[in-house]
Amino acid sequence: MKNKAITSRNEDFAQWYTDVVKAAKLADYTAVKGCIAIEPNGYAIWEKMQSILDNKFKELGHVNVQMPMLIPENLLRKEGELVQGFAPEVAWVTSGGSKLLDERLCIRPTSETLFCDYYSTHVKSYRDLPMLYNQWCNVLRWEKETRPFLRSREFLWQEGHTIHATKEEALEETKKIMDVYVWFHNHILAIPSITGIKTNKEKFAGAEFTLTNEALMYNGVCLQAGTSHYFGQKFSKAYDVKFSNKDNKEEYVYQTSWGTTTRMIGGLIMVHSDDYGLVLPPRIAPKQVVIIPIGSSDKVNLLVNDYKSKLDEAGIVSYVDDSVKSPGFKFAEAEVNGIPIRIEIGERDLENDNVVFVRRDTREKIIKNINDLDIVTYVKELLEFIQNDMYERAKKRRDELTFEAHNIEDFKSIISKTPGFIKADWCGNEECEVKLKEINGIKSRCILENEKCINGKCAICGKEAKHLVVWGIQY
Amino acid sequence: MKNKAITSRNEDFAQWYTDVVKAAKLADYTAVKGCIAIEPNGYAIWEKMQSILDNKFKELGHVNVQMPMLIPENLLRKEGELVQGFAPEVAWVTSGGSKLLDERLCIRPTSETLFCDYYSTHVKSYRDLPMLYNQWCNVLRWEKETRPFLRSREFLWQEGHTIHATKEEALEETKKIMDVYVWFHNHILAIPSITGIKTNKEKFAGAEFTLTNEALMYNGVCLQAGTSHYFGQKFSKAYDVKFSNKDNKEEYVYQTSWGTTTRMIGGLIMVHSDDYGLVLPPRIAPKQVVIIPIGSSDKVNLLVNDYKSKLDEAGIVSYVDDSVKSPGFKFAEAEVNGIPIRIEIGERDLENDNVVFVRRDTREKIIKNINDLDIVTYVKELLEFIQNDMYERAKKRRDELTFEAHNIEDFKSIISKTPGFIKADWCGNEECEVKLKEINGIKSRCILENEKCINGKCAICGKEAKHLVVWGIQY
Repeated sequence: MKNKAITSRNEDFAQWYTDVVKAAKLADYTAVKGCIAIEPNGYAIWEKMQSILDNKFKELGHVNVQMPMLIPENLLRKEGELVQGFAPEVAWVTSGGSKLLDERLCIRPTSETLFCDYYSTHVKSYRDLPMLYNQWCNVLRWEKETRPFLRSREFLWQEGHTIHATKEEALEETKKIMDVYVWFHNHILAIPSITGIKTNKEKFAGAEFTLTNEALMYNGVCLQAGTSHYFGQKFSKAYDVKFSNKDNKEEYVYQTSWGTTTRMIGGLIMVHSDDYGLVLPPRIAPKQVVIIPIGSSDKVNLLVNDYKSKLDEAGIVSYVDDSVKSPGFKFAEAEVNGIPIRIEIGERDLENDNVVFVRRDTREKIIKNINDLDIVTYVKELLEFIQNDMYERAKKRRDELTFEAHNIEDFKSIISKTPGFIKADWCGNEECEVKLKEINGIKSRCILENEKCINGKCAICGKEAKHLVVWGIQY
Repeated sequence: MKNKAITSRNEDFAQWYTDVVKAAKLADYTAVKGCIAIEPNGYAIWEKMQSILDNKFKELGHVNVQMPMLIPENLLRKEGELVQGFAPEVAWVTSGGSKLLDERLCIRPTSETLFCDYYSTHVKSYRDLPMLYNQWCNVLRWEKETRPFLRSREFLWQEGHTIHATKEEALEETKKIMDVYVWFHNHILAIPSITGIKTNKEKFAGAEFTLTNEALMYNGVCLQAGTSHYFGQKFSKAYDVKFSNKDNKEEYVYQTSWGTTTRMIGGLIMVHSDDYGLVLPPRIAPKQVVIIPIGSSDKVNLLVNDYKSKLDEAGIVSYVDDSVKSPGFKFAEAEVNGIPIRIEIGERDLENDNVVFVRRDTREKIIKNINDLDIVTYVKELLEFIQNDMYERAKKRRDELTFEAHNIEDFKSIISKTPGFIKADWCGNEECEVKLKEINGIKSRCILENEKCINGKCAICGKEAKHLVVWGIQY
């Protein structure tokens, strides 16, 4: 039965999204405009994301630090493009300890400035390099329209800031991290993505170039899901981050930064969830299995405990719902919360030596005879099946919603239905980007560097094309 | 040889502290006044603290959430005592997105207000209780004088906020968490502490009572190291957090809050470290063992790799320093960074089948024959010895610096030398606390509820005593 608290996804996608977030108790609005409270179920997903990504960053030699949350105005203003990009959307602290401040401090919208300032006094020689720093923290951007996880004034993220002795090494870092983001989306979140380079108009303020990982939501809207920026020496010159190189000459460091945010939780929901609530890929689900006893006979309890302890031992995260609620209520709760596998152990089924498994993703019921069942092997297998099936379904949806446009009319026609990734040739001029934006806000998502143009003519102006670009409407 | 970058502890304790923090690369000052950058070595300690405490909180049924970092002024002002306590030391955001705000927002100095506001709309019935929420985050207090870790405007902490259906349950929670803090200090940080209840003057603004964990630094100055507050229904009445109880009657919830901060890193340093740099108890050291090869013969390399892989397998965190620096330089670096055990594997020692172990805490050299050595068993044992010895030494120091005062003259005399914990009877009047504060800022640390008064007369005014109190000078 459809969950009554959840609007149908096909009827009103925006309302459906909000309903799923609320019903699964992931987050809620607060008394602070544009800022959310991330509730236990939502925060547990973020903790698992952090733990997986953090391990990966550390494997690659990164270490964590913590810079201040405030930035003095004069420090922010040192790099011109960054200021222009961020100044309109920062919050300013003007008094502290009951006194007006001599200089305003902004709450960090991103921390390039603070890292550069730190590096400028801590790097001396090429022997100190590379410095591969990352931090997990909150940032604030004064957004006008906000939506839980997708766009809120305050959000949580990780921001990596690295400096290197050579251009090659910094370029390699920029790409290496994008590989991590792509791996994380494909392998862990079961979200197939498209990767490419941002156009000059869409790149990070102050970057030489920005690599981006773009995901497609169920409704055909695009979501930027992780970016990795190459700065070259732009910031190191503005902030005077120098080192003496192997030839004993002073040189400015080569720099990168990269980040992913709690917005990925929004992406997870909009790619996988359905009218029954949250659906989570097993590898990111904080709880992978729920065991629900029906009745309380010894036979039931014995099997519940047996399965629970075996799953614990195998490192599969499960819990037993032995609360006083009715079985039907428990089923619905596990469903709305997106627990990948539900095991129902009931007195009546056990008379025939049967237990019931229910996959959350397909809601398929599978009856198994307990006598031929190795519970750990079976659950592991099923979790893998679910993970793979979810990826394949998301990929199928993405492929169905990937279009080609040869001219403006094509764009208009595609956008009039469910949109998606729109591949089209582009001449490289910003004017054409501006023109497309007038059509329902279509923006370039990324340049596909390794793919050839479709027919060599810009789909907007008809002039010679330089790049194949993916376009779309974004969150 | 003494580290030249570090002032002697007995000569100038304050400078020694700053030198150790700098030399071990734990933290540094930034362009933001009163805010520090926590560097990789310092942040790794915080990560280990977080991981151990977080597991413990979760074992006890707590879950993590994330509330906004900003608090609207009207929300902050709802509870009178809290405002009075914190309003003088908050930072105010007055503009965002280039516009003046209608209402100022303060950066959270603590989050009771936000949790109460959240709970007020999310609790309905006793079935929803208890709600055992915690968050790891940054907070800001506009301190005038700051010192790395001990007191900085921004710091990192965990703040637990729980609500309960009964007074008994909330009282139990308040105590249970204090037990966790005491266990963490004693068992993990090797810091013996004194626990008691704060006087009304010193308790948390708005609390009915505050339990505190008080540690004593090497120089005899006290450090508050974890507090747990019982609020009763004070906040729930101010913020209207009601539930319908088992008798179906409306009742206000019973509430607690509790926290520990990055200040514990400062405590660790000031209890254990020495003129050679940082000393870390093995259970909190991010890296427990360093292996330093001397020379690069096959025999050396073989043993280095053998030990490293065996320690890895046993879950002991070690690293090999095979950089190009000289052995002496590596020894000094491991020492200043507080690595608990250093293993030197050198060609010459190996001619006699010997390797050298050096304990960081005592700097004792231990020569071991490799033929009788089970490396894992030995290292485990040695780590335990170090942990216990560090605790015992800290306890001895604390006991030596624990005094009794029977009158004002005693206080003056004790404070004129190395101070410490000063036990003295107290009548319960705030006037006497104020009077003592005039003597070098002596403050009550806590009331020892389970200990009897010394002679029943207030050491300050001579009237009848109500409590035995520990007094001291604080950071």
